Amino acid sequence: MYICRMASIKPSTPKGTRDFSPTEMVRRNFIFDTIKGVFRKYGYQQIETPAMENLSTLMGKYGDEGDKLIFKILNSGDYWGEVESRKSKVENLELNSKNLISIISEKALRYDLTVPFARYVVMHQNEITFPFKRFQVQPVWRADRPQRGRYREFYQCDADVVGSPSLLNEAEFVMIYDEALSKLGLKDFTIKINNRKILGGIAEIIGKPEHIIDLTVAIDKLDKIGLDGVIKELLEKGFEQQDIEKLKPVILLEGSNEAKLNSLRSALSTSVTGLKGCEELETVFNYIANCQLQTADLQLDITLARGLNYYTGAIFEVKTNEVAMGSIGGGGRYDDLTGMFGLKDLTGVGISFGADRIYDVMDELNLFPVDTNQTTKVLICCFDVVGEQYALPLLHSLRKADINAELYPAGAKMKKQLDYANNKHIPYTIVIGSDEMESGLLTFKDMGSGVQEQMSAEVVLARLRT
Amino acid sequence: MYICRMASIKPSTPKGTRDFSPTEMVRRNFIFDTIKGVFRKYGYQQIETPAMENLSTLMGKYGDEGDKLIFKILNSGDYWGEVESRKSKVENLELNSKNLISIISEKALRYDLTVPFARYVVMHQNEITFPFKRFQVQPVWRADRPQRGRYREFYQCDADVVGSPSLLNEAEFVMIYDEALSKLGLKDFTIKINNRKILGGIAEIIGKPEHIIDLTVAIDKLDKIGLDGVIKELLEKGFEQQDIEKLKPVILLEGSNEAKLNSLRSALSTSVTGLKGCEELETVFNYIANCQLQTADLQLDITLARGLNYYTGAIFEVKTNEVAMGSIGGGGRYDDLTGMFGLKDLTGVGISFGADRIYDVMDELNLFPVDTNQTTKVLICCFDVVGEQYALPLLHSLRKADINAELYPAGAKMKKQLDYANNKHIPYTIVIGSDEMESGLLTFKDMGSGVQEQMSAEVVLARLRT
Repeated sequence: MYICRMASIKPSTPKGTRDFSPTEMVRRNFIFDTIKGVFRKYGYQQIETPAMENLSTLMGKYGDEGDKLIFKILNSGDYWGEVESRKSKVENLELNSKNLISIISEKALRYDLTVPFARYVVMHQNEITFPFKRFQVQPVWRADRPQRGRYREFYQCDADVVGSPSLLNEAEFVMIYDEALSKLGLKDFTIKINNRKILGGIAEIIGKPEHIIDLTVAIDKLDKIGLDGVIKELLEKGFEQQDIEKLKPVILLEGSNEAKLNSLRSALSTSVTGLKGCEELETVFNYIANCQLQTADLQLDITLARGLNYYTGAIFEVKTNEVAMGSIGGGGRYDDLTGMFGLKDLTGVGISFGADRIYDVMDELNLFPVDTNQTTKVLICCFDVVGEQYALPLLHSLRKADINAELYPAGAKMKKQLDYANNKHIPYTIVIGSDEMESGLLTFKDMGSGVQEQMSAEVVLARLRT
Repeated sequence: MYICRMASIKPSTPKGTRDFSPTEMVRRNFIFDTIKGVFRKYGYQQIETPAMENLSTLMGKYGDEGDKLIFKILNSGDYWGEVESRKSKVENLELNSKNLISIISEKALRYDLTVPFARYVVMHQNEITFPFKRFQVQPVWRADRPQRGRYREFYQCDADVVGSPSLLNEAEFVMIYDEALSKLGLKDFTIKINNRKILGGIAEIIGKPEHIIDLTVAIDKLDKIGLDGVIKELLEKGFEQQDIEKLKPVILLEGSNEAKLNSLRSALSTSVTGLKGCEELETVFNYIANCQLQTADLQLDITLARGLNYYTGAIFEVKTNEVAMGSIGGGGRYDDLTGMFGLKDLTGVGISFGADRIYDVMDELNLFPVDTNQTTKVLICCFDVVGEQYALPLLHSLRKADINAELYPAGAKMKKQLDYANNKHIPYTIVIGSDEMESGLLTFKDMGSGVQEQMSAEVVLARLRT
């Protein structure tokens, strides 16, 4: 019985969830701290919301499929008593997974950061100074089928501003992407930008708003299948020859962003909405022209249609060109974020960084910096309790000088101590044996180069301070 | 119908959970960053574990009461189908809240950071270099009845080392408490220390191990009720007159830690365990004598008995003496953390900071620093689009110099812009009107003092850099 129990408790984490090791945490913190620093530089302030929301806050916000993927929390206490009580009141109450949820669960884990943010804004509207520029970096949970690169718990990293219609915000999000990803070491990435109103304008001129997705999907294949291929696909999807003629300038859009805008303006000349979209994009481009993007290639891309039902103005997406990888960021403007909670007409625009994918890109490109202040800088090694006593004042001086330092507790073999330093990526060691204590000259070793020198405690301290 | 729906969706957070506003986040980050920095300085490395653990990992680890307070997650998909299937196989399967849990839930939210850490160590034992010094700062969830200062979601902030029996670790935890709490600005706090073996020794000499809690509770009242009161209480609790005689030196323990240790050593002279406890404490005191504690008053306190069934060596507790508040930290040594997951004989010692209580103490004592790098340093205000264009190059120069800066989008009244700066606690503003653009001298205002001066963009930049 005992053995059986032992065998049964081999521990694991739930499917689709991960532990993060010290090395991974150093790297993840580097990513998050960099992005947070840039958010702050642009005036964004951090908030946090609870992991749990009321089930009613989340349900119905992500479509039927989304509702199913929300993790529900079982009511604590006698949840089944409530079911019995309902059964006694409602004749023929059918017990099934769907009917029972609202009886046995009233809370759920957040599914994204957007709905909790909307809830936050409505709940705290009287304390908030608008425009409200907030960022939020917290995990979210989805009962998706786990697969490579898709987890049931993952961090989202969002910045949004609500209550400001100014397109300066859109321009600044482009700058934030540029600055943060450049700081992380990415050297070649594209920020794609589009505007929902341009897509609306195209739908208007062809009179087929319901086919706007088919259209963007087809145009997106231009590089691969050529103009004839695109036209063939469009005809198959229900467009007519006269639509194709109107659409040609849109399909063949190329050149600089300015050239594309000019072509769009003439193609969309009969659509007020479409022209408005062009004007908005031009304003954003003008704001950005004022600064110098460090790395990003900013591209007007009318095939960009993410979250079509949700966004009302600008749409963003970021892709690295160094590694094959889906988008590493995205966002856009929405004119009615808080309407679902009864606060109307609050416009917002926001972006998100895909931290897990950025991690994978940086890992593949070897972009994580080696030396950080997140690890121990020096390990003091000694052979016995006498050495330990000798080492303590030095240990305290090092820490007083804000140097991350450890003393390996007395009694372990020197090899074990040096292995510890190597495994923890500690760059320097100080060895204190009887010779060292006699002469007062410690053995200081650079673990990277293997070079070791004899020097006094004062010199060691000065060396490590730099 | 519509109105009814609107009225029903006034949003709220679940009972016992909280949103954190930007101001609260700045302060919370200050606390967490300070503590994390000290953990790192002493060689501790961060890990993170998933919010969800397998239900089997958590159940049975916190006692029956704890099991009830664990938040269980409802299985996704057709969880009720599984119940039906069980019912068809097991005759008379009684449906009740307890029986159903293991059928409809296989995951739960973590209840503390200790059990997930034990699970982590066992799962990753082949990757870990021992001694493993880890810290972890993450939220935990408990279905406790919420009350003032007690939440259903709160952060824990733990550091533990496993695989090292050295008492240097205990000594370093005292130093970590001292350094972190001093850095946070606390000026008067006590670190109480005890050793489980001393309590074991006392139980041994009186031969009543089952009454050890009654004993410490009674002794703890010495200041309030005097020796006679304590003796009366002990007699009521079942101690006999001869026990009292043996216990007197323990009850009347006073003076320096050294004096207390001497008294204990003679009182416990017949207990091997008790003397071992005294020796361990002395070793810890000797390690600490080597350094200078900055603020903490370190006190041997034999009434300290937290987690008696769990700890096997040192026991810690931290109390501020500036504000009436429960303990703001605690911990101790346990000799069998990972046994529950089948990995035996791994000794560990750890501490925890009570971040929410530390927040309340700092708030009451007004200890949060005003200037941090977490907020905007300067807001540029302008009257119209021309001013906005004029302002943009300055905005970019400020950010290039790593100064957190914002430009209020054109079009708002000056009062609204200055209110925005005040509400966000932005210390400086730059006003750009037509006079400023003509002369090239901007109006630079210190929002704290109200003083405003005219100066060129270059001078503003130089001023803000410092």
